[in-house]
Amino acid sequence: MISLGLENVVVAETDLSLVDGLKGHLVYRNHWARDLAINNTFEEVAHLLWYGHLPSEQELADLNAKLVANRELPAHVKAVVDAMPDDMDMMEVLRTGVASLPLAGDTWPPTLDQIIYLTAKLPTIIAHRYARLNNREPVAPRTDLGHTANYLYMLKGEEPLTAHVRAFDAYLILTQEHGLNASTFTARVIASTRSDLVSSITGAIGALKGPLHGGAPSEVTEMIEAIGTKENAEPWIKAKLAAGERLMGFGHRIYRTTDPRAIALSKVASELTAEDKWFDLAVHVEQIALRLLKEHKPNRPLETNVEFYAAAVMRAIGLPDELFTPSFAVSRTVGWSAHVLEAAKGKIIRPQSNYTGTMPE
Amino acid sequence: MISLGLENVVVAETDLSLVDGLKGHLVYRNHWARDLAINNTFEEVAHLLWYGHLPSEQELADLNAKLVANRELPAHVKAVVDAMPDDMDMMEVLRTGVASLPLAGDTWPPTLDQIIYLTAKLPTIIAHRYARLNNREPVAPRTDLGHTANYLYMLKGEEPLTAHVRAFDAYLILTQEHGLNASTFTARVIASTRSDLVSSITGAIGALKGPLHGGAPSEVTEMIEAIGTKENAEPWIKAKLAAGERLMGFGHRIYRTTDPRAIALSKVASELTAEDKWFDLAVHVEQIALRLLKEHKPNRPLETNVEFYAAAVMRAIGLPDELFTPSFAVSRTVGWSAHVLEAAKGKIIRPQSNYTGTMPE
Repeated sequence: MISLGLENVVVAETDLSLVDGLKGHLVYRNHWARDLAINNTFEEVAHLLWYGHLPSEQELADLNAKLVANRELPAHVKAVVDAMPDDMDMMEVLRTGVASLPLAGDTWPPTLDQIIYLTAKLPTIIAHRYARLNNREPVAPRTDLGHTANYLYMLKGEEPLTAHVRAFDAYLILTQEHGLNASTFTARVIASTRSDLVSSITGAIGALKGPLHGGAPSEVTEMIEAIGTKENAEPWIKAKLAAGERLMGFGHRIYRTTDPRAIALSKVASELTAEDKWFDLAVHVEQIALRLLKEHKPNRPLETNVEFYAAAVMRAIGLPDELFTPSFAVSRTVGWSAHVLEAAKGKIIRPQSNYTGTMPE
Repeated sequence: MISLGLENVVVAETDLSLVDGLKGHLVYRNHWARDLAINNTFEEVAHLLWYGHLPSEQELADLNAKLVANRELPAHVKAVVDAMPDDMDMMEVLRTGVASLPLAGDTWPPTLDQIIYLTAKLPTIIAHRYARLNNREPVAPRTDLGHTANYLYMLKGEEPLTAHVRAFDAYLILTQEHGLNASTFTARVIASTRSDLVSSITGAIGALKGPLHGGAPSEVTEMIEAIGTKENAEPWIKAKLAAGERLMGFGHRIYRTTDPRAIALSKVASELTAEDKWFDLAVHVEQIALRLLKEHKPNRPLETNVEFYAAAVMRAIGLPDELFTPSFAVSRTVGWSAHVLEAAKGKIIRPQSNYTGTMPE
């Protein structure tokens, strides 16, 4: 059969997640992702995806300890990151920094220890680079903070607010895993050759870098900034829709109804509203946009997608646009690596092509 | 439909190549690959794959000039390569060095200039590292040598023999392109997100690193070394077959008859026989092995595959095992990048998965 985008072909059986775009369902290993985002932490959900169940107190303490112990970068990785010219973007630096990570012991098959090691390193690579770009000395990772809080701490150089950590943690949980998207599929194809975990994650970062996948998150923040005030939301959006233009942050290729990630994120992030003018404006823009989109296309109005709230949360907590997709990589590494463990047991992925040229004599 | 290895699914229409394993056919854009390997150079065949036709004299001169002009590494890429610990293998270093390459101008869509730039860089990255590992100062690329000759020159630090260049060139031509193998498919999936050429090639290098794909070329050289002398070939191989063991370098997952690459490579490399004892032994081992394999399984004897001759050629010209797969990357970059150009016009590749877990309440 021919399927150039593979949209109708099942290439994996997976315990990891169910994405049902028609029903608006996202399940991580027998749990609603939205509940996990509201009730659990990054580490707990990573444990669920990696080990198959939410951790006991002892299991969580063990996982935390391992992640904490692996946060520091080897000297040569710092040297690699520091060698990258200032005008190379953060995804290029992350791709290179991850590619340079040495794996202890055998590179095949991939192990949970390698996965924890790698997951712990991504925030430090990004924060190291970000500090350099801002002419700050990179701070050492803190051992007393969780994965998300430490990431924010390293980025800002100061202890983050609890509401910020909570909203960002929810975002990172909701983007840990999402079926066989292009980056996860890339990681699985690479793993199917029995390469190694670092090769899989490096390839996946390259795929996530593409705007058709990792998105163009600045488009949402630019929209909200262009709107500027609550009063301007209605006329601005009306003018866009009248001109037949797309509204960024609404509608999703897969979710034909509400994006369950947007709902959960908006709920967790509502704590931000009181203290953050920017987030308050974003919530207002969403309300107006949803009403106008429904008036515009009553039969199939577009719903808020996760990018809208991701952009709103990340801007509210003070992360610039260039950190959006790298932060997506920080969380999706959890799902990528869980898929690599599954793919390691499978066979090589080698599809066919149709030759459209002529035959020589 | 479900297809976990995609072996029956066509995911691309391509002008680039036809691989017909039943007939033993390999076609690059309307030409027999075996004829190209015998009659043409690396640059001419790259031109065929990238531009769609063999070059005129002027076109070839232009391509040569561009490749030559792009051979030097940016200072930061040298720093990245030099930062990598000595115990990281060449494929890990190549993955990192390529990941660090900056692309001039827009990263999307990929351009032929970017492809030439990147193709010119791979040999220099490998040779730079190889010199360091051997406690030599890396030599600067030569501007008066072709792609293959300059690669050998940089590896060895001295001008290579014509017979070596010719045999190695044939090997590199025969491995430039081979349909939708796992690494090429990786490059296409990454390109389908509109990422960038460097991300695609970095991902492909990671896939090629896997022994199910890039092979374990040392297994052939180890076999020939274990045999040691012509006299020992027959008893050694007989003992292996009697023990039910596999003979390395014979049989291929796709080619059910002769591997056309092995035939062409053996023909070109026959010039080496007279001057090289190691190659002479390899040819003898092949003859004995083919006879014994036919006696062993008269109905479906295994034929020599490209890995056998690749190993024989590379050992004869003095390249150690750890350079086999990286050299494969040097040539396959031509095919990867041609596929990236095709995939850039296609849609995002996002397959489905079957969720095998349970649903939450």
